[in-house]
Amino acid sequence: MSILVVGSVAFDSVETPFGKAEEVLGGSATYFSTSASYFTDVKLVAVVGTDFPDIHIEGLKSRGIDVSGLKKVPGKTFRWRGRYDYDLNQAHTLETHLNVFSSFNPEIPESYRESPFVFLANIDPELQIKVLEQVKGAKFVACDTMNFWIEGKPDALRKLLKKVDLFVINEGEAREFSGTASLVKAARKILNNGPKTLIIKRGEYGALMFNHGSVFSAPAYPLEDIFDPTGAGDSFAGGLMGYLANTGDLSEANLRRAIIFGSVMASFNVEAFSLERLNSLCLNDIKMRYSEFKRLTHFEDI
Amino acid sequence: MSILVVGSVAFDSVETPFGKAEEVLGGSATYFSTSASYFTDVKLVAVVGTDFPDIHIEGLKSRGIDVSGLKKVPGKTFRWRGRYDYDLNQAHTLETHLNVFSSFNPEIPESYRESPFVFLANIDPELQIKVLEQVKGAKFVACDTMNFWIEGKPDALRKLLKKVDLFVINEGEAREFSGTASLVKAARKILNNGPKTLIIKRGEYGALMFNHGSVFSAPAYPLEDIFDPTGAGDSFAGGLMGYLANTGDLSEANLRRAIIFGSVMASFNVEAFSLERLNSLCLNDIKMRYSEFKRLTHFEDI
Repeated sequence: MSILVVGSVAFDSVETPFGKAEEVLGGSATYFSTSASYFTDVKLVAVVGTDFPDIHIEGLKSRGIDVSGLKKVPGKTFRWRGRYDYDLNQAHTLETHLNVFSSFNPEIPESYRESPFVFLANIDPELQIKVLEQVKGAKFVACDTMNFWIEGKPDALRKLLKKVDLFVINEGEAREFSGTASLVKAARKILNNGPKTLIIKRGEYGALMFNHGSVFSAPAYPLEDIFDPTGAGDSFAGGLMGYLANTGDLSEANLRRAIIFGSVMASFNVEAFSLERLNSLCLNDIKMRYSEFKRLTHFEDI
Repeated sequence: MSILVVGSVAFDSVETPFGKAEEVLGGSATYFSTSASYFTDVKLVAVVGTDFPDIHIEGLKSRGIDVSGLKKVPGKTFRWRGRYDYDLNQAHTLETHLNVFSSFNPEIPESYRESPFVFLANIDPELQIKVLEQVKGAKFVACDTMNFWIEGKPDALRKLLKKVDLFVINEGEAREFSGTASLVKAARKILNNGPKTLIIKRGEYGALMFNHGSVFSAPAYPLEDIFDPTGAGDSFAGGLMGYLANTGDLSEANLRRAIIFGSVMASFNVEAFSLERLNSLCLNDIKMRYSEFKRLTHFEDI
């Protein structure tokens, strides 16, 4: 089954302890769709400026991503500049130029409206709601957000959460949104707001899923070096949603497998700048790392 | 098989977001031996002052802990005062009064010297080495340390590491000791210093074991509230070593099980101040939480 993703396509300039990259391809929808494309058909909705080179569009197409919803409009593409220090869980934003993204008003092409899976990447929750109004028949909707919207548009976010099946946020955001330090309590509060399932991303510490009273703890893959964490969360969501859409199975057991596939894709993504590593994978790499996650976490009953 | 533990017995005064406790029983050897006592015989070596009430000694005895190595000497017992904020991974030390502990020179009673398992809790690495010189026939030796010794006595610590099988430290200490931010690289450097196995404790994020080229990631138990983290690391080590000594099996599979038992004991310990929760367990509580760890981490092959 196919996935519709709505989010950003951007140019990132990133500095990490391991090097720097200037104006490389980034954006939540880019990372998500590249990651998900290993599992299923992806239909992308985003906006870029006239400075956006066709070669990047060709790159997305070559991964089978449907880009008929990628609008090119007069102006410059969204740009983000950030730095990571040795604490690679924490991005320090140096510059944000929304450019054409500031007037992004996602219109879902007719050919996308039957997508059973929908991922609303981190954009204004009012726009996320507008997207959902255009895809009434979605089978499974997931969304992300960020502290900016938690602080700036909490009511819209709460309204959105009543309409989604899965909410994916990071640890600090979960604490901020719920106003509680305990993640277990935070999860209960958030699930009371609507979504059936909550996934809390914890960077190099993995992820926690809260679902129907059960909790699943997934580790992160212990990498020699985390080269560049940019896009890890969206690669995670891409692997997760991609696997769910591929299998069409929304059981707890399959959600757990999907989280591991998400973690696999995130672990590859952080091995290089931009989409370098994500674009160079084969299915066997992905399956092998899935098995490594199994070995990493396995212990026997007593 | 029995375990010899050498460490501190202390009075702790602790403040957390959930309450405060004044002059309650604490100390690394106390937490360790109480935790390990659920699995095997424990022989404790420590020092207290004349202010140490017999009721605490009786409490340890009632858990079957051999206290013939617990010396009472003129002076006051070690006291520590600390505070935890909402980031419960980080203890803020307010006061440390070593008192009689400052001249601690552990003498291992004759009846203890055949203990096949030895745990050297966090004390001066020169003293840890002296202990090992008194128990030549140990089958499996584990040790802990802290940043104070990493900074103050790195050479003694390196010398000690050549003599131990298992080194248990926390994440920040692993990074500091190895001088590298990557835990995978840090682990390799530390294992090159001697120990066959390294366990890195990550507080509410669980633990990582590096052993013969394999890595095991254990989660922490997602608790509603972490009431007081004091003693979590030593309770962890107590469950881990206790299970290893109980089974006498040092295989990778059993080390993994032992880490889960350690995590189980730590998860109970943090549910209350001092040894309140650790002292009130039954074996069934421990086994049930082990099963919960299994459910928490289980995912199926693809």
